[in-house]
Amino acid sequence: MACCAHPDDAEILMGGTLAKYAERGDDVFIVVTTNGEVGHPTLPKHEIAAIRKEEAQRAAELIGAELIWLGFPDEFLFDREETRLSFINAIRKCRPDVILTHWPGDLYNPDHTLTGQIVNDVAIMTTVPNIVTDEPPCEKIPVVYFADSVAGVGFLPEEYVDITSTIGVKRRMLAEHKSQVSDWLSDQYGVTMDEMMTVSSQYRGFQAGVRYAEGFIRAKAWPRGVAGTLLP
Amino acid sequence: MACCAHPDDAEILMGGTLAKYAERGDDVFIVVTTNGEVGHPTLPKHEIAAIRKEEAQRAAELIGAELIWLGFPDEFLFDREETRLSFINAIRKCRPDVILTHWPGDLYNPDHTLTGQIVNDVAIMTTVPNIVTDEPPCEKIPVVYFADSVAGVGFLPEEYVDITSTIGVKRRMLAEHKSQVSDWLSDQYGVTMDEMMTVSSQYRGFQAGVRYAEGFIRAKAWPRGVAGTLLP
Amino acid sequence: MACCAHPDDAEILMGGTLAKYAERGDDVFIVVTTNGEVGHPTLPKHEIAAIRKEEAQRAAELIGAELIWLGFPDEFLFDREETRLSFINAIRKCRPDVILTHWPGDLYNPDHTLTGQIVNDVAIMTTVPNIVTDEPPCEKIPVVYFADSVAGVGFLPEEYVDITSTIGVKRRMLAEHKSQVSDWLSDQYGVTMDEMMTVSSQYRGFQAGVRYAEGFIRAKAWPRGVAGTLLP
Amino acid sequence: MACCAHPDDAEILMGGTLAKYAERGDDVFIVVTTNGEVGHPTLPKHEIAAIRKEEAQRAAELIGAELIWLGFPDEFLFDREETRLSFINAIRKCRPDVILTHWPGDLYNPDHTLTGQIVNDVAIMTTVPNIVTDEPPCEKIPVVYFADSVAGVGFLPEEYVDITSTIGVKRRMLAEHKSQVSDWLSDQYGVTMDEMMTVSSQYRGFQAGVRYAEGFIRAKAWPRGVAGTLLP
Amino acid sequence: MACCAHPDDAEILMGGTLAKYAERGDDVFIVVTTNGEVGHPTLPKHEIAAIRKEEAQRAAELIGAELIWLGFPDEFLFDREETRLSFINAIRKCRPDVILTHWPGDLYNPDHTLTGQIVNDVAIMTTVPNIVTDEPPCEKIPVVYFADSVAGVGFLPEEYVDITSTIGVKRRMLAEHKSQVSDWLSDQYGVTMDEMMTVSSQYRGFQAGVRYAEGFIRAKAWPRGVAGTLLP
Amino acid sequence: MACCAHPDDAEILMGGTLAKYAERGDDVFIVVTTNGEVGHPTLPKHEIAAIRKEEAQRAAELIGAELIWLGFPDEFLFDREETRLSFINAIRKCRPDVILTHWPGDLYNPDHTLTGQIVNDVAIMTTVPNIVTDEPPCEKIPVVYFADSVAGVGFLPEEYVDITSTIGVKRRMLAEHKSQVSDWLSDQYGVTMDEMMTVSSQYRGFQAGVRYAEGFIRAKAWPRGVAGTLLP
Repeated sequence: MACCAHPDDAEILMGGTLAKYAERGDDVFIVVTTNGEVGHPTLPKHEIAAIRKEEAQRAAELIGAELIWLGFPDEFLFDREETRLSFINAIRKCRPDVILTHWPGDLYNPDHTLTGQIVNDVAIMTTVPNIVTDEPPCEKIPVVYFADSVAGVGFLPEEYVDITSTIGVKRRMLAEHKSQVSDWLSDQYGVTMDEMMTVSSQYRGFQAGVRYAEGFIRAKAWPRGVAGTLLP
Repeated sequence: MACCAHPDDAEILMGGTLAKYAERGDDVFIVVTTNGEVGHPTLPKHEIAAIRKEEAQRAAELIGAELIWLGFPDEFLFDREETRLSFINAIRKCRPDVILTHWPGDLYNPDHTLTGQIVNDVAIMTTVPNIVTDEPPCEKIPVVYFADSVAGVGFLPEEYVDITSTIGVKRRMLAEHKSQVSDWLSDQYGVTMDEMMTVSSQYRGFQAGVRYAEGFIRAKAWPRGVAGTLLP
Repeated sequence: MACCAHPDDAEILMGGTLAKYAERGDDVFIVVTTNGEVGHPTLPKHEIAAIRKEEAQRAAELIGAELIWLGFPDEFLFDREETRLSFINAIRKCRPDVILTHWPGDLYNPDHTLTGQIVNDVAIMTTVPNIVTDEPPCEKIPVVYFADSVAGVGFLPEEYVDITSTIGVKRRMLAEHKSQVSDWLSDQYGVTMDEMMTVSSQYRGFQAGVRYAEGFIRAKAWPRGVAGTLLP
Repeated sequence: MACCAHPDDAEILMGGTLAKYAERGDDVFIVVTTNGEVGHPTLPKHEIAAIRKEEAQRAAELIGAELIWLGFPDEFLFDREETRLSFINAIRKCRPDVILTHWPGDLYNPDHTLTGQIVNDVAIMTTVPNIVTDEPPCEKIPVVYFADSVAGVGFLPEEYVDITSTIGVKRRMLAEHKSQVSDWLSDQYGVTMDEMMTVSSQYRGFQAGVRYAEGFIRAKAWPRGVAGTLLP
Repeated sequence: MACCAHPDDAEILMGGTLAKYAERGDDVFIVVTTNGEVGHPTLPKHEIAAIRKEEAQRAAELIGAELIWLGFPDEFLFDREETRLSFINAIRKCRPDVILTHWPGDLYNPDHTLTGQIVNDVAIMTTVPNIVTDEPPCEKIPVVYFADSVAGVGFLPEEYVDITSTIGVKRRMLAEHKSQVSDWLSDQYGVTMDEMMTVSSQYRGFQAGVRYAEGFIRAKAWPRGVAGTLLP
Repeated sequence: MACCAHPDDAEILMGGTLAKYAERGDDVFIVVTTNGEVGHPTLPKHEIAAIRKEEAQRAAELIGAELIWLGFPDEFLFDREETRLSFINAIRKCRPDVILTHWPGDLYNPDHTLTGQIVNDVAIMTTVPNIVTDEPPCEKIPVVYFADSVAGVGFLPEEYVDITSTIGVKRRMLAEHKSQVSDWLSDQYGVTMDEMMTVSSQYRGFQAGVRYAEGFIRAKAWPRGVAGTLLP
């Protein structure tokens, strides 16, 4: 299960890994916490939100993943009771073994920081009977992994996933976000999203000794360590 | 393959993991870089070195591992050409996929620091034809993992191995170091080695969500990343 | 003075140190910021809150400490004006030289993170006349220490307190939390609270060269440094 | 543009650098996010707020800077939608190339932590058309620098600005804060603000190889890196 | 002035920055500390050393830089008196304002680690009259910058240089190292050196908001701070 | 016991703390590991070494400390067997409870780095019977503290000693180093040693809430933790 702040974040930061889970036959969920409504230079908020939800839907379908849309206002996600309960309910819907989310240390955008922080904060709460949401409590505490930061700024991966076999579908997933891959972002930032994503995956691949990779850090908190396999 | 500074270090810091490799059928090697000759309060150096080599031999045999004894002087290992070549040759003998060694950040003892540092430094050199030792070059660069520090001081594990199934043999391996588990160390430090090892394994186990565990950090250096499996 | 998120946190993370203060004749206060109402698998919230308050009361009495109960909702403590004022008022009641609280870096639970963060944030405010609560301002800024994380994950102690003489009363304090030391937690986590607490105290003891210890980090913020004694 | 929590913070932590910008002919703005109303031992809140605003005004005038006063309650700034919008609007007024603000890692005061964090969080939002405030969006994303912590606690500067030529005006700016430089603060902290500021500037100067300096860390977040000049 | 361990290191890690210095009219020196003699799969040591020196010479000539060849044995550089004096003498020949060298934290290769460490260690000594080498003492202490690690592993740049205008000559410099850009390295590592260098420069460029960049960290040591310019 | 690289280092970095130990009646030793022979612009090496030894002697006498002079060549201390044995013997002479030495993380000078590192490395060896030097083994392992770096670069103190009562004698101790406090150093660095030392002590004092302080970090290594007192 992926939990990201905006439509296209999951595709950029963990799309290759999600595709590998899907390939293996796992159920994959993509939770998007905000509605992405500020992500356009000219369209009004409600139109862009609707467009981006459809784009996210199409991207998810490429790997057979289910999209869950929490709909919080873009750029204005806050850590409140309703937010935590909404996150808990979404996780209970997915009953995940593993959650991939944003790294709270990324200074890029507060929706990223808070999405990552709240996912980690509520991981145990999803199993607690006395916290009531629409969905019943989870049986086990999911393991939380923090994904790379945007452009890798400040991030030192501790684990890598080889996505050489899924870089193609990752690029197609990203390409579904047509409203984002047009000219305005490359005007603003001097680089297309596809180029930035591909080069980032190559760079993490060099570090991991493969063609393409994605980097992660496991959330270090009791009792969510993972032991049982041998190294590496 | 384990590479540690003194007889008994491998047993304490990574014995459970080595036993799991052995259980799986892997060839396991225990390289001891110094002769441990200062490790006794009354016996002269050459006697204690001989005794400890025998103890290490018996401990290795418990899991069918091969002992390799480099014989550098205890407490006076230095980073010199002959040391590097000796390490390279030992690694070429083992042709390991994975090397477990000391964490260079451990301030406990310079033999630990330097053993860990040199193992990492020569990992690529083992594959280089123009560096000639008795053994032919390795075909692939081994992955290096740094084991826990003594008493866990300063060390934050990034990966854990569940050793619940091998804690028994780990304790028996340590018990073979009879010259070390007698009274003088517990007089000096107020704790027996068995107690310290067992409690440390339990503590790392709590962190990892299992009964007993050992903690590690993968050496972060190009091109020894490891990608290809899914998380966790 | 201890300030922790849930009943039993103070006992687990700093109980031995509190007992030493009490032994020395200091006034000891245990502030619990939430009502612990989610901490049971079957009982309803208000019942469990009442039970846990009584348990905390009995544990505090074992060392003659005063319990202060802030009653914020368990798992839903937030950094708001009312929360800060409530914390300030509680600290003004105790007029402490030293406050022991949670380490804000612990990713285990947001009530822990926020309790530690808010205690540090308001430490100076407790002395400011223009911030009005029921209690008059403190005369001096208390020194804040952050206690160990749960299971020590991610935490590197900078200072240790030898609790060898108080490990017994620490265990009895924890045993008063009968609703927590029953089967459900060990079912969930595979370890009893008493075992985890005892082993953690032993482990920190190894690091400190004594039988049992608790680890702390002093909050690094102006002007709450402490100088005046010699090392160590 | 400077954005600080209280009147006098900008003067203490970055006054010399602001004076250098002014000297060079740049437009300089000093944004103060709270009204500083708790900053006095005897005066009521609204009086001290008014006094401090005037003091800040006079200090700003010394270098020809414009003061922008956000007026949030002192010690009770929170990260809410209205706060972010107010910050965004202030930045849009200034249209800065560079923003100097508090370092979010400073544990001294939550107004500092949050001012620094929110400035960084909204830096990109200031350019986004779909986030509407009184002022039109900025054309480019400002570069954010975090200034030294109070008394330098916990802070390791990555860049320094030589303020030898402006230390005089920096001292005069600080001296305008007459309500703060009187006896009560030096009673509370055992040091006058002028002495602490001057010694801190000297100390950072030693580190930078000049008489007086101020230290900074650039916010590390995409896409606000700065390349284009040669080192140093 | 660049000081690197092997022929081609300067080209890969700082070639674009050196070219910019050259473009500006500065005197540029490339010091290579070892003879690179193990860098070939089949040729004997003395032949490959001679070939690589010529290649380094041609690469340096592309930007009009002077090559200085220290000739220590490849993979066996050690921190000894003769090494320090040789480094001091080389620096005195160049009389640099700035030295770019390896980051001592890079675990990739001990020649890198030690070259970076020794350059930093001797920076002040180059000005000391009582340390006598062939060249007279320097008048001023050079500023030391540590360049990116190989593949960026473990490295978080603090400063960036925009090399968009010199990426072309950087690629041509690297291409002169014909003995290294042939098949054997890409067989060993699964990537060509040109590809790895180009992608790395792009990735650092994303982080810096330009097409291509190189990342650096200034050595933090008294009295080599640099203040005097405004941010950024 | 202090163990520093050059005559005057102990005075600058830990002189106030040593004076407090002396005041309390403890035996204080100042070990200087090199002969300081490069520390002059015009005098030949053997003359300056002799002068500086006398200066160090006079400074030590001011607090009744004993000077121990190891005489290794200035700027060329290396980690060799003879160095370790010389350090072990010096520590055995002093039989210290506490050793104050350089912080190995200081990039200022390799004599500093190595003195601090070797002191920590040999701390346990001083108690080992099978390591034979002129002096008999110590009975207990000394606690090691690392002192501030030169100008505090890169150093975050974890503990402070209030030296307000001994700043006067600290200044007089430093003033005995007449060969160092003359014009040449302030020409080279733009600041006198007395000014730098005094301002640094003031700055660390601000951080510690007193007039003058010195900062330290305890070496984190088993089994040299210190527990037994209460906080702070």
